[in-house]
Amino acid sequence: MHVNHGLQEQANSWQLSCQQQAEALGLPFVAEMVDVEVKARSSLEAVAREKRYQALAKHMDAHSCLLTGHHADDQFETFMLALKRGSGLQGLAAMPQIRNFAAGCLLRPLLLVTRAELEGYARQQQLSWIEDPSNQSLEFDRNFLRHKVLPELTQRWPQWLASTQRSVQLLQESVDLLEELAESDYQKLEREQTLCCESLLLLSPKRQRNVLRYWFKRMNWAYPSQAQLAQIITQASAQQDAKVAVTLSEGECRRFQACLYLVREVELLESNLVTNWELASTPILTLDNGSQLAWQNGGKLLPPSSSQQVSVKFRTHLEQKEFKAFGRLGSRSIKKLLQECKLPPWQRNRLPFVFYDEVLVAIADIYIQQDYACPNNKGIALNWLPTC
Amino acid sequence: MHVNHGLQEQANSWQLSCQQQAEALGLPFVAEMVDVEVKARSSLEAVAREKRYQALAKHMDAHSCLLTGHHADDQFETFMLALKRGSGLQGLAAMPQIRNFAAGCLLRPLLLVTRAELEGYARQQQLSWIEDPSNQSLEFDRNFLRHKVLPELTQRWPQWLASTQRSVQLLQESVDLLEELAESDYQKLEREQTLCCESLLLLSPKRQRNVLRYWFKRMNWAYPSQAQLAQIITQASAQQDAKVAVTLSEGECRRFQACLYLVREVELLESNLVTNWELASTPILTLDNGSQLAWQNGGKLLPPSSSQQVSVKFRTHLEQKEFKAFGRLGSRSIKKLLQECKLPPWQRNRLPFVFYDEVLVAIADIYIQQDYACPNNKGIALNWLPTC
Repeated sequence: MHVNHGLQEQANSWQLSCQQQAEALGLPFVAEMVDVEVKARSSLEAVAREKRYQALAKHMDAHSCLLTGHHADDQFETFMLALKRGSGLQGLAAMPQIRNFAAGCLLRPLLLVTRAELEGYARQQQLSWIEDPSNQSLEFDRNFLRHKVLPELTQRWPQWLASTQRSVQLLQESVDLLEELAESDYQKLEREQTLCCESLLLLSPKRQRNVLRYWFKRMNWAYPSQAQLAQIITQASAQQDAKVAVTLSEGECRRFQACLYLVREVELLESNLVTNWELASTPILTLDNGSQLAWQNGGKLLPPSSSQQVSVKFRTHLEQKEFKAFGRLGSRSIKKLLQECKLPPWQRNRLPFVFYDEVLVAIADIYIQQDYACPNNKGIALNWLPTC
Repeated sequence: MHVNHGLQEQANSWQLSCQQQAEALGLPFVAEMVDVEVKARSSLEAVAREKRYQALAKHMDAHSCLLTGHHADDQFETFMLALKRGSGLQGLAAMPQIRNFAAGCLLRPLLLVTRAELEGYARQQQLSWIEDPSNQSLEFDRNFLRHKVLPELTQRWPQWLASTQRSVQLLQESVDLLEELAESDYQKLEREQTLCCESLLLLSPKRQRNVLRYWFKRMNWAYPSQAQLAQIITQASAQQDAKVAVTLSEGECRRFQACLYLVREVELLESNLVTNWELASTPILTLDNGSQLAWQNGGKLLPPSSSQQVSVKFRTHLEQKEFKAFGRLGSRSIKKLLQECKLPPWQRNRLPFVFYDEVLVAIADIYIQQDYACPNNKGIALNWLPTC
């Protein structure tokens, strides 16, 4: 598989060359073209890498194993770039020899071999290969390390790359150990993917940060900064659920009923649109706040008559204050009902209210209007997915 | 306090200069001369450092706080030297800002300040200082990093030292966390400073290595290598107590009754000497196997008469095979008695056997001969210290 970044004039000839090599070896060949939008010069490598891995991921299934050619010199460069960013253990542990990737796994079989050894082997075996001229450009941080720093070090200490590799492997072992510790702490704190503040605060501050980082990783969120971690711990230590949220790249960290929530941006979106819902043709309705409302047979809500128009509105549209909920005596205030259902406050304005013509018949999948309740599950059932 | 290493011609004039500065400030001044025996050129720095800290340690008490002038450039060099050795997390975590030292503590208040900042301040304040000419010699690894590697990096990335410092601090946090994990595992495995093999093997391999390293640290032994750790785990996994010992710099790791022991070299020393013991003048007798035997009034052993010569022999000198131990019925084999007392086998040949003239009256502080037992603690008590 070849990823064509289209960044160099020769990009297409490289792809052709790869294709020819594959054909000569009788191997299937796939090329993916990616569009690397050049923003700041310094992030070109990062953008290209991200796009490259996205393109590769598309071709992975559970049986796939992607092999990349990263070698010991690359490992050293990755390590030093992490140091340049002031990274902690996780970053300095650089590249593992094996890791999960997309649906399959990623292996780096050449990681212990130096670039010089690889080049020596290639010459000896009379292999042909392509040099990317951008490897020479000192504008790229990685190339600066390759051409200016590494030669100094290996000239003085020929074993330099082997030592770096050993250090990195030991750091990887420490990463795994800290993950074991985090995992066991997480088991004690976790309540349906939220963290119990009280139990969190029983841990030492370092362990608090460790388990928070683990939580982020598990939720597939980018690691928070030290400052963000400190804010989250302050939030957890507050006397009451404050409305303060910690802003993060994927959304916000919020607190509700003494638990911490990671709330994706989409879960915070509110909508003001009124949406008509043709039940017959639309079993799953996607709302413009990113949530979905589905219906199926076999529930407690009386279906609409053929003349009734079904529509979905939000709390902001609501004029009525009271609601006669099925299973409750008499009429109650909607505000109270919403508080009772233990829904985090940021979800209350995102709840779909279902109307038959002008009558509010259901609040999401939580409450049904008494007059529209249908015994013995002979009606329809609603199901609300806050995020999808 | 000035440590005079006597390595440079100007060494004495440096000491004088420090003394004068102290006098000018009205501060007490102490100088310590150390003898740095130059072995291989490369270890001169290491030997000098060790001697220097030994000399400093002598002046520390529980209220002492040693301040050293290590700065951010030193920190980077220390980090890179650890990388050169292929060190793991502990080594790469380099120098902490504060740590225990001898009876007191060691602080490094300038660790976040770069050398250039310090020099700028010193010039601005018109301070006088001394440059050690050996700082220029590229023969020393540290100087090579200082003069050849660091300038390249800081020229390209002016924030380089601040980033390194942040990375190192994050690694220190990880060190502390892994120590928390090790500490909690150690509590579960430890039996009087030995480790229970069965419980050790219940941990994941990484946690086994982590708790073993912690045990070494707690015992004040140098960290074992990866290969030594693997040997120790093999030893712990064996079906039976094998006689195989893992050799380490301070002694050996041995296994006895399904526990691992760290046995110092001195605890393995055996002696063949017969030692006469003048009880009156020698309350504590130091034996040439490094152990000590003490006596005091108030025990179960009948004191010798004035005409009896007390002597200490070892098992190798013993002709008799049987012993009538106080509290036991009849005579038993000494071999059996020693097995019964659960003493690890390497200590059995180090046990002092106490004779009054030609009669064996006591085996260390464990057994007393029946005829020499004295009721009501009116006799003397022996106390054997296997190591001192």
